[in-house]
Amino acid sequence: MTDPVNNPARFTPLPLRDVILDDAFWKPRLETNRTVTLPFLYGQLERVGTIDALDLRPRPLRVPRHPGSAVTPQMWWDSDLAKWIETAAACLATHSDPALEAQVDALIERMVAAQQPGGYFNTFFTALEPENRLTNERDWHELYNAGHLIEAAVAHAEATGKTAFLDMMERYTRFLMGVYGEGPGQRRGYPGHEEIELALVKLYRLTGKREYLDFARYFVDERGRQPHFFDEEARARGETPDPALLSHGDALPYEYMQAHRPVREQDKVVGHAVRAMYLYSAMADLAAELGDDSLRHACERLWEDLTTRRLYVTGGLGPSAHNEGMTTDYDLPNDTAYAETCAAVGLVFWAQRMLNLTGEGRYADVMERALYNNVLGGVARDGRHFFYDNPLESRGDKHRWEWHACPCCPPNVSRLLASLGHYFYGQNEGGIAVHLYAEGTARFEVGGQPVTLHQHTAYPWDGRVELSFDLERPAPFTLSLRLPGWCRDPQLSVNGEAVDLSGVRDGYVHLTREWDARDRVALHLPMPVERVYAHPDVRQDAGLVALQRGPVVYCVEGTDAGVSPHRLVLPRDAALSATFEPELLGGISIIRGEARVEESGDWTGTLYRTAPPRQATAPLCAVPYALWDQREPGDMRVWLRGE
Amino acid sequence: MTDPVNNPARFTPLPLRDVILDDAFWKPRLETNRTVTLPFLYGQLERVGTIDALDLRPRPLRVPRHPGSAVTPQMWWDSDLAKWIETAAACLATHSDPALEAQVDALIERMVAAQQPGGYFNTFFTALEPENRLTNERDWHELYNAGHLIEAAVAHAEATGKTAFLDMMERYTRFLMGVYGEGPGQRRGYPGHEEIELALVKLYRLTGKREYLDFARYFVDERGRQPHFFDEEARARGETPDPALLSHGDALPYEYMQAHRPVREQDKVVGHAVRAMYLYSAMADLAAELGDDSLRHACERLWEDLTTRRLYVTGGLGPSAHNEGMTTDYDLPNDTAYAETCAAVGLVFWAQRMLNLTGEGRYADVMERALYNNVLGGVARDGRHFFYDNPLESRGDKHRWEWHACPCCPPNVSRLLASLGHYFYGQNEGGIAVHLYAEGTARFEVGGQPVTLHQHTAYPWDGRVELSFDLERPAPFTLSLRLPGWCRDPQLSVNGEAVDLSGVRDGYVHLTREWDARDRVALHLPMPVERVYAHPDVRQDAGLVALQRGPVVYCVEGTDAGVSPHRLVLPRDAALSATFEPELLGGISIIRGEARVEESGDWTGTLYRTAPPRQATAPLCAVPYALWDQREPGDMRVWLRGE
Repeated sequence: MTDPVNNPARFTPLPLRDVILDDAFWKPRLETNRTVTLPFLYGQLERVGTIDALDLRPRPLRVPRHPGSAVTPQMWWDSDLAKWIETAAACLATHSDPALEAQVDALIERMVAAQQPGGYFNTFFTALEPENRLTNERDWHELYNAGHLIEAAVAHAEATGKTAFLDMMERYTRFLMGVYGEGPGQRRGYPGHEEIELALVKLYRLTGKREYLDFARYFVDERGRQPHFFDEEARARGETPDPALLSHGDALPYEYMQAHRPVREQDKVVGHAVRAMYLYSAMADLAAELGDDSLRHACERLWEDLTTRRLYVTGGLGPSAHNEGMTTDYDLPNDTAYAETCAAVGLVFWAQRMLNLTGEGRYADVMERALYNNVLGGVARDGRHFFYDNPLESRGDKHRWEWHACPCCPPNVSRLLASLGHYFYGQNEGGIAVHLYAEGTARFEVGGQPVTLHQHTAYPWDGRVELSFDLERPAPFTLSLRLPGWCRDPQLSVNGEAVDLSGVRDGYVHLTREWDARDRVALHLPMPVERVYAHPDVRQDAGLVALQRGPVVYCVEGTDAGVSPHRLVLPRDAALSATFEPELLGGISIIRGEARVEESGDWTGTLYRTAPPRQATAPLCAVPYALWDQREPGDMRVWLRGE
Repeated sequence: MTDPVNNPARFTPLPLRDVILDDAFWKPRLETNRTVTLPFLYGQLERVGTIDALDLRPRPLRVPRHPGSAVTPQMWWDSDLAKWIETAAACLATHSDPALEAQVDALIERMVAAQQPGGYFNTFFTALEPENRLTNERDWHELYNAGHLIEAAVAHAEATGKTAFLDMMERYTRFLMGVYGEGPGQRRGYPGHEEIELALVKLYRLTGKREYLDFARYFVDERGRQPHFFDEEARARGETPDPALLSHGDALPYEYMQAHRPVREQDKVVGHAVRAMYLYSAMADLAAELGDDSLRHACERLWEDLTTRRLYVTGGLGPSAHNEGMTTDYDLPNDTAYAETCAAVGLVFWAQRMLNLTGEGRYADVMERALYNNVLGGVARDGRHFFYDNPLESRGDKHRWEWHACPCCPPNVSRLLASLGHYFYGQNEGGIAVHLYAEGTARFEVGGQPVTLHQHTAYPWDGRVELSFDLERPAPFTLSLRLPGWCRDPQLSVNGEAVDLSGVRDGYVHLTREWDARDRVALHLPMPVERVYAHPDVRQDAGLVALQRGPVVYCVEGTDAGVSPHRLVLPRDAALSATFEPELLGGISIIRGEARVEESGDWTGTLYRTAPPRQATAPLCAVPYALWDQREPGDMRVWLRGE
């Protein structure tokens, strides 16, 4: 028997085609994503003109940006389409689909035809405002669009082996490398909306061309330096840089886009939440690729700030609609929580990179929290309705949309679901790590030998996980298993022999031995219903309690409670139990208990009185937050009144 | 001894010069209002160009509405100035001040010189947009400005006997009577922002000219009828009436200005709160003057709606900044409460009219609640800082302004304070009613004999009130004393003999006897510290408790608590006591008790945990809400966590 060893390692995700999720929780959602959401989103992109915009060609007259015409010009056209192609490519990686592949090929053909001499590609600026091309990176999203296009091209090449799109994006990237940089005649610019940085790392990893990594590093290093590029760029447009105009409310100038100071000097998660997540993801990538500890330490400081002061219990972030982003420490309003779906998706990206960089389970804990709660709540079970913002309290007037004026979230959650396999496992030279648990298999190689890892589990409804391997001959390697932070008392045995977990650090137990096909690993993660309390400085949660079981955060909906959930009080000693309901919302565990309800029958004709409300006993029923608003509309609360 | 009799009567306020408030609570504030606020506001009106705008004359070119020039054109110029003149007139009614009188006369001279041939008067439209005159009553405030000018002219004539301003406004009124009405060639219009209706009733009462009352009735009756005037008016401007553009968020079209249906069919307090209060005030006036029970019943339905579902415990109303007004039943957010000062001022207007109409104490209760809390909080003790909105919870970043882009509130609270004497007493043929209590005197006549009523009291800090009369010979009349709704156990004696109050209805005890100068009336209104609970449907107050003593609502400020008040928990059995602090904030009663405080020392490095916060005992100190934000900036809460 091998002792667990404390062996933080750098992990690499497995290729999508090597991970099969064959469970009751994720598999139906991924199937819906592939067979419903993907065509549905294409239809929406067609409907709003994003597809036809590919055929627009430069015209002498500008058209208004928001006419009532079929084609509604939007600066983020390319990003929406790119995320759809990336989703399609991820689906093609796991499921052969010649019709889909042809559909994507046809799109790419139209894109290649629209690429400008020299390599520039942006549908909006090429067709409608060629004179404004590359004049306002602060506000106009060109590098952001380029980033999503690069991500899509990489995913498409990885999935299909075809390179037309990749070649096109390498041409565009080389064009941009001529424009931006520290050399003579170059502009020392960088994007207002980060995205291209992490995309360039992907492009480097696929092509092996170091200049793409250097370009990403340039963008990250240049950010926030003085003299400030966004000031210079404004002057070049003939504008006076006005910090007040950029302040987006209470934030300092350029905090909105994390460009208020150089990234290594940043220690607060500020501004637009999605931009922040994409920037930090790139910083983590560069820290890994370059062994740059200064970037790693900056990421660690920012992580500490986010997770100890600014993160919703659902894994959401960015409470304010005003700046689509961050406010102040411990400010976590529930009813007005913005908590954009894209921000939680971005947090999953960042968390995964920090996990791969450090091997520390705390990153997997947050990744899991965001994934099972805020992210999954972003799309309905029908695959056709989406939340843009994700409040933790609702008065019954909040529902998922079929589309949004700024449709970034639907394709973002869709591409994450399509590539979910990336997040479950990590490989390194020493073996395999299991980050997330779900029934299914993972294929990898050890010493040239193919190995298949089997997970048998009903996670997240049950915390028992059995693992075994298919392999032809015994092989020595390390199996690293995550012990989730939410679990107080994990138990582990190998072939029936208990493994002492008392010395485990950083959330992973590392089992190194010669594994063979007869070995059986049994992990038990007991998941009682937990009451969760927020830090006393979170005024919006004062006196309140949330319910969590395993990684799943629960909420109470009016349709179960029969009253608005704010009228329920959960006694501290009330017994709470979980029950699996196979017929409810596709099969979920609900939480039941006995609460008290405040009665209003004796309040006729008065709004205030000196006698406290009378209370009666009432049943409590809580359902997973990610599945709210899929039955009768009504009030919802994550944070319940405690006592 | 006379038995109390249930004798609801219609009251008339006493003239300002006959009421003297000589107490420690109001008198210093009224002095500051007269000697500091009045000249300060004039200086502000000069500074922003409102005064100089009087000398603008029609010019061929329009100037932009918000240039950086000294004169910043505003459509509500005239209303700001009118409220200032009304305040000055009220001050002149109680305090002779030749310099002030000359200052006002000079202003009036400039206004008269600016009146247009035919009688029209509006500084903004005359000078800057003559072509737009009377083309958009829905949005452009001309009749609103006219209303405030009429109120000011009436107050000026009453205070000084001079009629130049009154004559000017009668000319303007006659001009408007030619434009609007049901006759041939007239427009069936009415204001988007109500105000002129109640002003016309004042003009009628001063002049006795019935046509002004009829004009007020016309505006009120026409409101909300179909075909809708605001639609017709929009078509006349060549616009397509777009209900969506008028909806101001979730409200139905024209609900914003209470013009969604005829006023007698309205039963919900909706839309812009100030407009609603001014409309309902006029409806109550007309109900009284015309004996119109249908208007009275509409007012009673709207009152019921407001006070049982939509009123803050501070007497504030209109929770939403979005429409400066109402939202839905039981929606009373504390931190984002708009609760505009003008709306509470308007509620005092309406409540007083309902009280005078019905003689029912419930109206005086709300009038007192609004006056002692939301209204008084609208101006700082220094007389130079003002709240526009009045939240019931603050994070330390909310302070009174010296001015506001829409400076309606400062002169509104100022004119109310200057005329506060109007609200304390009511007279009718049978005698005198005391609505509010304060050390001071009231002069009135009974049977041709002058009588002076003396109040001896330290109200609102002490509930004992002694009343006596100066009169030369005994006289029979009724003394009606309000028994406040907040008082559970009032006690009353006349010359030492207890009066049985058990049969009193409608909040007033009526003492009818032959009074002479030796009579002594002793009223005791015990005012223990009360815990106040909100209706269980108010989700924002669920689990919370407010503290009130007498009419005064309290709050906890961080400067006293040493921690943010959301961390305090007030046990249900904690003893609470009031102490008078002569040195604090001009002399106030504070509330002390023992609370518990949630500790955060053991939360290092985590935002959520499964163990509830630890609690320690902590002193509680609460101060009157109206006096918050006058010491060190910090967090504030009216609603405290109970248990």
